[in-house]
Amino acid sequence: MTPTIGILGGGQLGLMLLQAAIDWNLRVHILDPDAEAPCHALCTQFVQGSLTDYETVYQFGQTVDVLTIEIERVNVDALEALEREGKRVFPQPAVIRTIQDKRLQKQFYRDHNLPTADFILTDNRADVTQHSDFLPAFHKLGRDGYDGRGVQRIASISDADKAFDAPGVLEKAVDFEKELAVIVARNEQGQVQTFPTVEMVFHPELNLVEYLFAPADVSDEINQQAQEIARQTADAFGIVGLLAVELFLDKAGNVLINEVAPRPHNSGHHTIRANVTSQFEQHWRAILNFPLGDTSAYQPAAMVNLLGEEGYTGPAVYEGLEALLSMPGVFPFFYGKALTKPYRKMGHITVMDADMEQLREKVALVKGSIRVIA
Amino acid sequence: MTPTIGILGGGQLGLMLLQAAIDWNLRVHILDPDAEAPCHALCTQFVQGSLTDYETVYQFGQTVDVLTIEIERVNVDALEALEREGKRVFPQPAVIRTIQDKRLQKQFYRDHNLPTADFILTDNRADVTQHSDFLPAFHKLGRDGYDGRGVQRIASISDADKAFDAPGVLEKAVDFEKELAVIVARNEQGQVQTFPTVEMVFHPELNLVEYLFAPADVSDEINQQAQEIARQTADAFGIVGLLAVELFLDKAGNVLINEVAPRPHNSGHHTIRANVTSQFEQHWRAILNFPLGDTSAYQPAAMVNLLGEEGYTGPAVYEGLEALLSMPGVFPFFYGKALTKPYRKMGHITVMDADMEQLREKVALVKGSIRVIA
Repeated sequence: MTPTIGILGGGQLGLMLLQAAIDWNLRVHILDPDAEAPCHALCTQFVQGSLTDYETVYQFGQTVDVLTIEIERVNVDALEALEREGKRVFPQPAVIRTIQDKRLQKQFYRDHNLPTADFILTDNRADVTQHSDFLPAFHKLGRDGYDGRGVQRIASISDADKAFDAPGVLEKAVDFEKELAVIVARNEQGQVQTFPTVEMVFHPELNLVEYLFAPADVSDEINQQAQEIARQTADAFGIVGLLAVELFLDKAGNVLINEVAPRPHNSGHHTIRANVTSQFEQHWRAILNFPLGDTSAYQPAAMVNLLGEEGYTGPAVYEGLEALLSMPGVFPFFYGKALTKPYRKMGHITVMDADMEQLREKVALVKGSIRVIA
Repeated sequence: MTPTIGILGGGQLGLMLLQAAIDWNLRVHILDPDAEAPCHALCTQFVQGSLTDYETVYQFGQTVDVLTIEIERVNVDALEALEREGKRVFPQPAVIRTIQDKRLQKQFYRDHNLPTADFILTDNRADVTQHSDFLPAFHKLGRDGYDGRGVQRIASISDADKAFDAPGVLEKAVDFEKELAVIVARNEQGQVQTFPTVEMVFHPELNLVEYLFAPADVSDEINQQAQEIARQTADAFGIVGLLAVELFLDKAGNVLINEVAPRPHNSGHHTIRANVTSQFEQHWRAILNFPLGDTSAYQPAAMVNLLGEEGYTGPAVYEGLEALLSMPGVFPFFYGKALTKPYRKMGHITVMDADMEQLREKVALVKGSIRVIA
């Protein structure tokens, strides 16, 4: 009766999916290239292998009833072959294919009248230099960008040497007020459910979420816009599973799609503690075609990413854990990565408080209290 | 830096401890006689072996830094040997030894002036027949009773043949109004923290918790009494870890200790969803000597035990899961036991609602909606 589920990827998102899978006693197999991946000891079966190799992904898919992902850099040809043979693959390979290429992704928004910053598709670096009137802009690599890699700010034509000499997209820089995110789930029956809108604060240099607040401090109108765009985007893709929709709120009050991820997302980790249904349980509900869960929050929450401290590389040591555990409403989550390096995501800390002002104070305390060193 | 922890027992309590251990990336080894125990695939290392065999427990203990239990029927001699050699064993073997024998346990309450029903220690069945003036009473087997086994009600002398012909305790029947429970945690520094008092409703025949409500519907005074008795009991034992204190509230308004368990307990499963800190995280905090966590609840909660349906034995089938998952604030948890049999604990369902009356209605709905059959 219980299906066997396979996840491509065994990192921290897989780990949190496994944790949620325990409640329903789901049988989960994991494929990851790293024998010591965070998930390796905590799943029904762990397979070491490449996520981008056709044969490896195809063979892994044969051993499970339902196949899903926790990272979008996977071999989509293999997923499509499995889907053609009747395997249940969620999110669907076609959705992953569109999203894993930022060029296709941007074109998708344009084709579906979904609001996004203006852009020009570029084939190489020389192409970028043709568009000085379009600057300042961001040049994004079409494929294989991840966590801040694959994005360059091109302020003026003198920065053109920073552009990628490969197919990419030149995206008009948005003069934004805030960055928001809405995680939305959709199941096979087309039921769609959003999580409350969150506000992300990015690290000034790293293009990584440094911390976030939930709910976002925006007007009801902006919130409704963000929620509606997330729903429309999920429906446009027809995705089955989670879709994390990252948004810009520009200074004119427009909400624009920045990018999406077809899986659980860093902007929803606080939902494990703060919401009736976590994003991870919601992913299971969506891909197993169960009714989607209530996404409302018990309390306002914040999430602080725990990044490896600058200047330390080696076996990770968590300094300040005891102080952290003495603070009420503070929940550290460590990903079990043996080695730390500068700015590596080593864990996150959820912070909750019924009072928004006290929440902000607690976040400041938390950020000062723990360091990952070697 | 991270200690390796061993748990004696790999059943559902171990499973929920493992789930909580994921947040802190704890390395957990499990010893259980059943190769297919709920924990077998979800721990750092699983060892199949007897919990009551000296050598097996002793050898398992050698492989870990901290040793704990999820069931009290374990070889205490081996734990004492390990403790003498400097191993950290929590709860302490002496506490387990007292609790695993109901005769020693009852005598302990008497010696420490902790309120409990009057009792007489008996050596055999013939002994019981000497005490007709003490009836109605319960005759409890000193050792190895579990989940309803090892307890007989002796209403009058004509029931004396139901008494156990082995060392036991004859305990005055309490004419009780309610059965309550308080889970309390104590760490090595002597910090003590209780969970809110819950009210348990037992199955009329099985001596198993059928469902419970948290918080208990009792006066502030009774609640304070229950909380205070739990604290005093934890302090009297000097336990490091969790202590689940089951209590009678008698018709005269007295709160009396029924029995205790030195581990996570069925009366605290709802804390996974309903409380800031779950009983499982609290157990880790206590035995790793971290500050104890905030035990307050986000909302009133109930917990319904999911027992194997009468008349069905075999591979478990969960009938009605989809309906259950469509109810907001309803959280099923399945223990992953392959086979069901009548009244076997197969899982539990946490139910939450801000309104106590609606909570009761939801519980009635939940009880009618799901069955475990074969």
